[in-house]
Amino acid sequence: MAELFARHRATLEAALAACRTRGFWSPYPEVPSGKVYGETAKAEAEAAFARLRGTLFPLDQESRGEPVGEEVSPWTGEPLGIRYPRGEVETLVAAAERARGAWAAAPVEIRVGIALEILTRLNRDSFLMANAVQHTTGQSFVMAFQAGGPHAQDRGLEAVALAFEEMTRFPARAVWEKPQGKAPPIRLDKEWRRVPRGIGLVIGCSTFPTWNGYPGLFASLVTGNALIVKPHPAAVLPLALTVETARAVLREEGFDSDIVQLAVDTSAAPITKELALHPAIGIVDFTGSPAFGAWLRENLRGKLLFTEEAGTNPVVVQGCRDLSAVTANLAFSLALYSGQMCTAPQNIFVPERGIPAGDGTIDFDAFASALVRAIDELLADPARASAVLGTIRDPATLARIEKARGLGRILRDSAPLAGAGPARTATPLLVELGPEAEAAWCSEWFGPIAFLIRCRDAEEALAKAADSAARRGAITAALWATDEGFVERAVEAFVRAGAPLSVNLEGGIYVNQAAAFSDFHVTGANPAGNATFVDPAFVAGRFRFCGVRRPAPATTRSDRGEPS
Amino acid sequence: MAELFARHRATLEAALAACRTRGFWSPYPEVPSGKVYGETAKAEAEAAFARLRGTLFPLDQESRGEPVGEEVSPWTGEPLGIRYPRGEVETLVAAAERARGAWAAAPVEIRVGIALEILTRLNRDSFLMANAVQHTTGQSFVMAFQAGGPHAQDRGLEAVALAFEEMTRFPARAVWEKPQGKAPPIRLDKEWRRVPRGIGLVIGCSTFPTWNGYPGLFASLVTGNALIVKPHPAAVLPLALTVETARAVLREEGFDSDIVQLAVDTSAAPITKELALHPAIGIVDFTGSPAFGAWLRENLRGKLLFTEEAGTNPVVVQGCRDLSAVTANLAFSLALYSGQMCTAPQNIFVPERGIPAGDGTIDFDAFASALVRAIDELLADPARASAVLGTIRDPATLARIEKARGLGRILRDSAPLAGAGPARTATPLLVELGPEAEAAWCSEWFGPIAFLIRCRDAEEALAKAADSAARRGAITAALWATDEGFVERAVEAFVRAGAPLSVNLEGGIYVNQAAAFSDFHVTGANPAGNATFVDPAFVAGRFRFCGVRRPAPATTRSDRGEPS
Repeated sequence: MAELFARHRATLEAALAACRTRGFWSPYPEVPSGKVYGETAKAEAEAAFARLRGTLFPLDQESRGEPVGEEVSPWTGEPLGIRYPRGEVETLVAAAERARGAWAAAPVEIRVGIALEILTRLNRDSFLMANAVQHTTGQSFVMAFQAGGPHAQDRGLEAVALAFEEMTRFPARAVWEKPQGKAPPIRLDKEWRRVPRGIGLVIGCSTFPTWNGYPGLFASLVTGNALIVKPHPAAVLPLALTVETARAVLREEGFDSDIVQLAVDTSAAPITKELALHPAIGIVDFTGSPAFGAWLRENLRGKLLFTEEAGTNPVVVQGCRDLSAVTANLAFSLALYSGQMCTAPQNIFVPERGIPAGDGTIDFDAFASALVRAIDELLADPARASAVLGTIRDPATLARIEKARGLGRILRDSAPLAGAGPARTATPLLVELGPEAEAAWCSEWFGPIAFLIRCRDAEEALAKAADSAARRGAITAALWATDEGFVERAVEAFVRAGAPLSVNLEGGIYVNQAAAFSDFHVTGANPAGNATFVDPAFVAGRFRFCGVRRPAPATTRSDRGEPS
Repeated sequence: MAELFARHRATLEAALAACRTRGFWSPYPEVPSGKVYGETAKAEAEAAFARLRGTLFPLDQESRGEPVGEEVSPWTGEPLGIRYPRGEVETLVAAAERARGAWAAAPVEIRVGIALEILTRLNRDSFLMANAVQHTTGQSFVMAFQAGGPHAQDRGLEAVALAFEEMTRFPARAVWEKPQGKAPPIRLDKEWRRVPRGIGLVIGCSTFPTWNGYPGLFASLVTGNALIVKPHPAAVLPLALTVETARAVLREEGFDSDIVQLAVDTSAAPITKELALHPAIGIVDFTGSPAFGAWLRENLRGKLLFTEEAGTNPVVVQGCRDLSAVTANLAFSLALYSGQMCTAPQNIFVPERGIPAGDGTIDFDAFASALVRAIDELLADPARASAVLGTIRDPATLARIEKARGLGRILRDSAPLAGAGPARTATPLLVELGPEAEAAWCSEWFGPIAFLIRCRDAEEALAKAADSAARRGAITAALWATDEGFVERAVEAFVRAGAPLSVNLEGGIYVNQAAAFSDFHVTGANPAGNATFVDPAFVAGRFRFCGVRRPAPATTRSDRGEPS
């Protein structure tokens, strides 16, 4: 039974080494290439995706109601037509309760081996996942492949590796021997069982269902909990494929496949609150809006709750070595997936005048013009623009853009991407605000909406940026500066605000990227979320140590190294 | 400045090794001996304690109100007469806010060195602590010395060691280099700062203020948080001495002593809720009643909360090899500190008939008689009885004994200890109940109150015991059994209930003992508490990782090992 563990052991150990050294590493190639994934993989995935459309998704879960499914591709505007078993809270919980005992009792190596096999199969099927992610989240194909496939798998593997380390860092048994002076020592045989919490609930989001879902899913699974995976009604398929893969591996290895279940609901009749409140649920992992995060924080009691919500990610510009390199980098961060990333910048704090740029000095307006130009250049070629922007997942985002237009002077207006056909698209909106307009910029404007905030000077820019990160949360912060003393002050200010900072990025690395095994994603140190992908605090509490102790046989003289 | 770290490094490393191997270890001798602590230590401590009485405790904290103090020795019935600065919430928080920045920014080695020096001085002063613990909690002198001194210091050291390991298990800096095919790799210099939560609040209990207080206190302190220590009004002095020692070391090392403050209130005007709710408090460590624990769980939002509350610790008797050895062991566990330990057994589930005992078989009544006889024998000698029982800390416990008398047939009545003078004492009350009387035995009866529960057979005994542990919580569970198959079933049942189990203890080791570096105290897997002394989950979340990343200089050919 530990065959899977043996098969994947080298990957596990490399993952642990990567976590410890925090350098670049990944076992899952990010390039959607036939050379890596097989020359026919792309075509086969397209065919498989086409076959799924209009069908009942093949999940052998118990469900009495009518199947449900309301996914619509933001690329085509057409429903996917895939129906799933309707999630019924008591049915799901009862099945998880039946399944969880044997899983909790399974050796760590068995559980970890199964998790690693699931990840391996998910990686093999990355092209199909790319189709599923593209046509639910609206990401471009390449991003859907990378973020929905290998990068998500990296995050899952990272969670498995850290959970394995937590479960095995203390021995399973030990002899405890307390000297008693001249009397024989007290000797106890001690054993510590790892006891899972019970049932974990993973609440998926609509933009990165796998990347954000896998850490909690795999952390809860390998620590011995049964799982109920509740996808966003708009992005079910990526997690349905994941659950299907997990159930197949569990079944093959002789476990009840209900250890991992999918809970599909509809936007009209959501079941997430009822599930989260159910006493059988011990762990809740949530990625989504601060509004629902607040509800969970307010209403859950005696459960482990891990949230990734949202913030108002700030950018501070004090100065730049190469203006066009900086604005190109920032333009890409604003445009990527149309700002629908939790890591996308929102508030760009720029001094009114006297910004060092190259050999000269520019003012706010010149910086604004340069940034607008960089966005326009990035999006000049429609094919490239489409690959960068993807589509707008939720029509409500278009309404939000319209509302944001009225907040201040429009530096760059948003517009549908020319030639995008039926795809729902919108290029970045850039609005100028004053630092005093906090009511506007100090809340989250999800989507391709950014504010250029005209500050008195760099010190005010930094103060406003760090303060907003501390008070309203930030998942990322970026700084461009030429004054090293200012950089040091900014580092201190953002660290105090609990916001991870990227300084002077240029070229092919962006503030919105977070790499597994290296970057801790979300600090948990400001209101943007209480959990980190993936640190020990994210995994350690998902199981507990329960001791069993019994008198040990007395040592003989030779045990004690004494002459007999 | 890292001198203290260097001085105590060997102790830290030995503590880490002990945590990893879970064998017996302690650097703090538990014997209250002049040979260890100095021949004059005992007398000097008595003199120092006598000098403290009737004075204003020397703490240089800001406080405008009248000093307060209401401690009364359960041994003499006399007030200690010690007054302390009155804890004022806003004053305490403001001082902590002023102090915490420099502490958060201090290197890990500085903070850990200071914590280890504090523990070393607390150990040196263990005789004074013994007096303080004895005359507030009412423990006997030897127990007050051991549990209040060295064993509490062990728990503090364990927390320091595990927190040190968590803070240092990942590097502070790394270069992340991502290959880009034939193009130069992307290289980032990454740094991760450890960001504390802010201010930790430690809510002390009245029975083991140091043993239960030190894990949270030292875990929050070394991870960079400022501390407010709120003792129980009846047991202030042990934590006052602790805070005084901490402040002295902090001051000597150039830090603001308000990094650790004492918050003393009165039973008439408690400030605990106000403190716990204050937005500046990020971490709350609580030991005490399930009622107040429930209030904290209900009312705190967005804070880390670690609780040790209480359960109804079960004992199951299936059979015993040596009846008198078993009853002697159980009698001691019931009598020790008059059952005022969170680990003391409460419900003893015994089959009605057919209990294997030695070569024969006995029934419920014979077991009850043997247990009563063992308690009587244990307490036959008044001096020994006093050393075992100590005193009753809270007069309300006497009223609880009176109430418990009415619950069922009294097998052994409670009585004051003969010749105990002014000391408030009560020997164990043993009441027979039926398994159906769950309303009575399935809640906590704090003090020298135990129930012998007449069960149909051993299977019913186990089922009731494990079920009550899961539903109402248990910090310990004990089993005496001769049937190895039954032992295995019991292990599985108690592990499922998240209750640590001691099997077939005899001689000088008792179910109520929990050893630092080896036993995880409280599993967090049942309602008796949500936290463990001390596992990684207890320390990991007290600080967060915050990343700072910047482009790294490009490698040269020779860096990459290529010929130049």
